[in-house]
Amino acid sequence: MKGWNLMKIAILGFGTVGRGVDQIVADVEGVEVARILDLPDRCCEPRMTSDYDQIVGDPGIEVVLECMGGLEPAHTFIVRALQAGKHVVTSNKAVVAAHFAEFAAVAEEHGVSLLIEATCGGGIPWIASIEKARRIDEVTMFSGIMNGTTNYIVDNMAKTGADFDETLAQAQRLGYAEADPSADIDGIDVKNKTIISASVAFDVACTPDLPVTGIRTLCKADMDLFAAEGRVVKLLGHGLSRDGRYAVAVEPMALPAASLEANVPANFNLVTLEGATIGKLKFYGQGAGSLPTGNAMVQDVLDLRDGRRPRYDLTRPLAYDPTLLTGDYVFRTTVAPEGAEPYGPGAWLVRSITAEDARRLLSAIVATDETAFMARLA
Amino acid sequence: MKGWNLMKIAILGFGTVGRGVDQIVADVEGVEVARILDLPDRCCEPRMTSDYDQIVGDPGIEVVLECMGGLEPAHTFIVRALQAGKHVVTSNKAVVAAHFAEFAAVAEEHGVSLLIEATCGGGIPWIASIEKARRIDEVTMFSGIMNGTTNYIVDNMAKTGADFDETLAQAQRLGYAEADPSADIDGIDVKNKTIISASVAFDVACTPDLPVTGIRTLCKADMDLFAAEGRVVKLLGHGLSRDGRYAVAVEPMALPAASLEANVPANFNLVTLEGATIGKLKFYGQGAGSLPTGNAMVQDVLDLRDGRRPRYDLTRPLAYDPTLLTGDYVFRTTVAPEGAEPYGPGAWLVRSITAEDARRLLSAIVATDETAFMARLA
Repeated sequence: MKGWNLMKIAILGFGTVGRGVDQIVADVEGVEVARILDLPDRCCEPRMTSDYDQIVGDPGIEVVLECMGGLEPAHTFIVRALQAGKHVVTSNKAVVAAHFAEFAAVAEEHGVSLLIEATCGGGIPWIASIEKARRIDEVTMFSGIMNGTTNYIVDNMAKTGADFDETLAQAQRLGYAEADPSADIDGIDVKNKTIISASVAFDVACTPDLPVTGIRTLCKADMDLFAAEGRVVKLLGHGLSRDGRYAVAVEPMALPAASLEANVPANFNLVTLEGATIGKLKFYGQGAGSLPTGNAMVQDVLDLRDGRRPRYDLTRPLAYDPTLLTGDYVFRTTVAPEGAEPYGPGAWLVRSITAEDARRLLSAIVATDETAFMARLA
Repeated sequence: MKGWNLMKIAILGFGTVGRGVDQIVADVEGVEVARILDLPDRCCEPRMTSDYDQIVGDPGIEVVLECMGGLEPAHTFIVRALQAGKHVVTSNKAVVAAHFAEFAAVAEEHGVSLLIEATCGGGIPWIASIEKARRIDEVTMFSGIMNGTTNYIVDNMAKTGADFDETLAQAQRLGYAEADPSADIDGIDVKNKTIISASVAFDVACTPDLPVTGIRTLCKADMDLFAAEGRVVKLLGHGLSRDGRYAVAVEPMALPAASLEANVPANFNLVTLEGATIGKLKFYGQGAGSLPTGNAMVQDVLDLRDGRRPRYDLTRPLAYDPTLLTGDYVFRTTVAPEGAEPYGPGAWLVRSITAEDARRLLSAIVATDETAFMARLA
């Protein structure tokens, strides 16, 4: 190891992730958690403060770790830290998906870096791996199981034969799902991670207006239907880039049972990138949790210490072209879509449509049959 | 990108991997292949030479990329490059497994680095990922499918029902296996990668005297036997470290059909590491080939350009303790081992023995039944 000085960091938000960071840093030489921001009634030790000025105004603090979640005040705090010449490490996928281009511009202007490993895939070194691959290859494709809650649900349904509601309730009891599970089961969490992944992979200010479908209406009969075809349903985010164009989507996919994705257990994540010389690379690990996500944030801090200074330029003029993501879709519904072929009992196959058109068709079907489910054949 | 000067590199050996490196570097800014070493009758362009002195004596060359393979002259050339103050990047697992501690000491003495990403797992960022994980966690376990040839053979046997010889012949026709397949099917290639992985993961001069069993005697009946138990056979290298001790082994394992490892197709690789805070991380990709392996070597060059300077200290006083790798083993043989339980037709289960004892038992059995096969239940 080269010589280096003590690097002082501050943690914003002392919940699951913030505590994980603090626990990990305690065993890492050369890094010190100097301040912790939390609500006034939760400040219980000398490092803690509820006054952000004490952190952003402290010239001794080099890096601010934002793990509060939510859009505000996280957005304002991140901008202020960057403006104050501090690097920012965040685990907050919602705020990065919403404000990535702004953060990148402010970081650039003030000569500091924004590090976002913990926003996607928990402890999986996903963002750093995309950046590394791009030193040699264009990344032409990414896809992934990026949400542990929904993977836990579909894996459990597949293994136990239980139905959706019962499995969701169990996930909530075990702490794998929130009391309000909408962000997970409606695909919002995966949408944020897909926007961030596409931005890093393709150098583009990814559209927030992508087709997103979750698994809220998935039922045991759907699992059985696809199992009979040798397929397993998983919720994936994915993106493609080709010839100056790109497309992204979040949708349930019915994958071959012998694929790696189909065999991802419990609340684990698996993400894939592809480039011309490297081929397909896949990364598997804990997609959430105090220590894995804390690990990802501390890895970002150690990268800063070792001189890594990621710079994101989201101004590449890639055109959003939904026709890149064209495929075959199965709709389980009481209303047969026009021109569809039968796929199985109560299920219909529509060939060669875009992810956007599939999402539109599902919305039209749901107006009549709100229990309808859709999956892309992959 | 920060400003940087042109980095001049030399390639030793212009075969599959060397050509891959040259092809990739042609599209990478800031790096130039200045010289290529090959046999006199193969030197056909101005960059090529058969005189190593022209490379090792050229102060303009910062990095030597050794992709000749074999022990000599690779060993001598690597030592001379390090002594001349040049960083060395190599894809040569045999020479690193045999001389890792010496290379590390010479590199240290001369203030340069040895980079070995391409020795294990082809294009998979495996060595760099172990090093990264170790910035925070002790790596307590690694394991992996690290040989594409044998994975191609077992995957093909599982999918087609063909027997070993026929599948090996097909792999040879497709260029996935060498005319003399011994290094692959007897586990020698995986042994070298296991020694290197253990050295990096555990900071130890890994013993070359580990238990190694290949798949030369694997037959269709073995695949069927394990398939009936919901298992798939794969050849793995693995290692454990605990309480100042470590153990390593290379052996066929009978894995649950729903594990990621069981579903690794064709000639792909999948490697796993585990640490206290990160949990299990798995990495999947092309384990060999001109462009993936070339990609790994060029990534090492770009790491050097960006300031990464790995230093390997293989002097940690870890005791080699084979009892760490204890498990249940199945022997398919006409000779029932003493005290074994029946496992299936012509197959016997021996519970809770070390990998070393299992290897010894297999050797004793093979003296009578040279077709015997052994796999660890995992």
